[in-house]
Amino acid sequence: MAETPDAGGDRIVVLAHGQFPERAKTAVGVLRYGDSEVVAVLDRDHAGTVAADHRSDLPEVPVVGSMADAPDADALLIGIAPIGGGFDESWRPDVRTAIERGCDVVAGLHYFLADDDEFAALAEAHDVALHDVRKPDPDIGVAEGRSAAVDADVVLTVGTDCSVGKMTVALELLEAARDRGVDAGFVPTGQTGIMIAGWGTPVDRVVSDFTAGAVEESILEAGRDHDLLFVEGQGSIVHPAYSAVTCGILHGAMPDALVLCHEAGRERVHGYESFDLPPIPEYVDLYERLAAPVSGSAVVAGALNPDGIDADAEARSAVDSYADDIGAPAIDPIRFGPGAILDAVLGAAEDRRGRTDGGR
Amino acid sequence: MAETPDAGGDRIVVLAHGQFPERAKTAVGVLRYGDSEVVAVLDRDHAGTVAADHRSDLPEVPVVGSMADAPDADALLIGIAPIGGGFDESWRPDVRTAIERGCDVVAGLHYFLADDDEFAALAEAHDVALHDVRKPDPDIGVAEGRSAAVDADVVLTVGTDCSVGKMTVALELLEAARDRGVDAGFVPTGQTGIMIAGWGTPVDRVVSDFTAGAVEESILEAGRDHDLLFVEGQGSIVHPAYSAVTCGILHGAMPDALVLCHEAGRERVHGYESFDLPPIPEYVDLYERLAAPVSGSAVVAGALNPDGIDADAEARSAVDSYADDIGAPAIDPIRFGPGAILDAVLGAAEDRRGRTDGGR
Repeated sequence: MAETPDAGGDRIVVLAHGQFPERAKTAVGVLRYGDSEVVAVLDRDHAGTVAADHRSDLPEVPVVGSMADAPDADALLIGIAPIGGGFDESWRPDVRTAIERGCDVVAGLHYFLADDDEFAALAEAHDVALHDVRKPDPDIGVAEGRSAAVDADVVLTVGTDCSVGKMTVALELLEAARDRGVDAGFVPTGQTGIMIAGWGTPVDRVVSDFTAGAVEESILEAGRDHDLLFVEGQGSIVHPAYSAVTCGILHGAMPDALVLCHEAGRERVHGYESFDLPPIPEYVDLYERLAAPVSGSAVVAGALNPDGIDADAEARSAVDSYADDIGAPAIDPIRFGPGAILDAVLGAAEDRRGRTDGGR
Repeated sequence: MAETPDAGGDRIVVLAHGQFPERAKTAVGVLRYGDSEVVAVLDRDHAGTVAADHRSDLPEVPVVGSMADAPDADALLIGIAPIGGGFDESWRPDVRTAIERGCDVVAGLHYFLADDDEFAALAEAHDVALHDVRKPDPDIGVAEGRSAAVDADVVLTVGTDCSVGKMTVALELLEAARDRGVDAGFVPTGQTGIMIAGWGTPVDRVVSDFTAGAVEESILEAGRDHDLLFVEGQGSIVHPAYSAVTCGILHGAMPDALVLCHEAGRERVHGYESFDLPPIPEYVDLYERLAAPVSGSAVVAGALNPDGIDADAEARSAVDSYADDIGAPAIDPIRFGPGAILDAVLGAAEDRRGRTDGGR
């Protein structure tokens, strides 16, 4: 399992040059949901501002122009990922300065920092670690169907497409569950989630035969520490390119419950516009019937991401119509809070426990 | 794309020590369906026999005890794969002799011959090639939804579980189609199929995000050369460990038609006996509805593998009941020939062409 040791409680600097906050998903995720204390964001285009100036849900963390201007920290985290996952050479001075100041460097790029001759030599000289979280653990193997054996309730966010909010919904539910005193954990499956959580396996990077096995390994690990797990789903079960990962996560996680995530108004597969999305009820049926022979999970709630809908009333109406489509409670968890989804998740878990106890 | 150059037409020796023919799936496949001429099988337990002594559907190829006893050949092919895919050190003298005699060596093991210091040095000295077909092409990427654009009709064998005959059915259909004068091709997706075909990508070994992309690449390549493609499916769509690969092949191949393969009497997932197989009609529905948003394929025929059923009458009755379950023609293609499946496949292709032409 790829781990970023000691992430929790660390003081970290997050690099997001030119992309903060709109195109800096990892940086925003770490600021919103991470266990580490972010002491600065690097964005040379916004130096002198604070994160809260850009988004009201972010803290008053200073945005500075370079690592040289950042306060003391334990680690530098690369909080943006260019298309293709390459390393932008304009970041090199910041990474160099970070290493020279004794910071570990954490990245989720396809380009591995540890394979960069300059960074590797510098890191050794300064006794710091370079963590490339996209590098999957070579020990991961085929699934053995063991996820059902964990004591924790397992909730998986699934979607109608890529980029509909599956990771965000899982993290919002995590926060809300903890606020209610539930011992909840987050199981990341992609590099952004892994960087936010500080541990995990990039399921989309493992050998295809090991897709379910990689998720199973994470579930078993997190299940030892928590009563309720929110697992980050990927892609969609009918995506022309990424359905393999979706299906492997569905069967590897053996979830007790599913939360279906959708972006209001999306009608075609993002980036694959010649493919129409099927009707919402078809997704519910497909996910449930595919899951049935392995773990038997139901879609217990829906999360709608009403991007582009400005008025609250219109968003409420979109949410109501979505709830009708899936036959379960639904909400826009960002605008209205994730309480309704959490109620449904906890209610379904109660029902299952009732059934299990009754059967004894 | 992993290629085994010049496999077609070559004279080859197939290594199958101690496992021929029952546990030598690759060796038997190459003998039955390969384009190369097999000049000897290596099995020290059966030296002095011929392949036809062991199975009546195999040719009169001599079985010899070691490479030193084999006739002239262009290549040695490792025709067995121990559990775990390791290299058995008892094979080393045969591989050494083959290289010294100027033979290429082809293997589908997890252990790569090209990474073995002795073999690599010897191969260089004797100017022969070491082909490790399990090594996926590093250039493979995400699918782009292009498989539908090939001119060839694409038929995918799908299954209710692992090891139900998906590769064999595809190869039987290939042979039968060619016998009828159809320009048909085989698209392998696993190492046995790749070794038989002499080309292909091991889809189960690529990065999970590229599962559909790897199949798409093969379809585009084979589609340039043939009018009808039989694609080797893998696993099952509800397999606790391997469904990711199954789903990626289904969406990456964008098949026009599906042939559902099943082993009579199998009720539980092989090797995962705590998981029941769902009813056969559920598989038909799941495969068709999962395929629908991407390519819209129907299950047009079924292949039943009645392992353990000895009497023809009983096998006929099992086949009839299976045909009822899938609502399409079905046959045991080994016992009764694949004609009925091929009729259904060609008929469905005719229907599609009729619809397409009518729509112009």
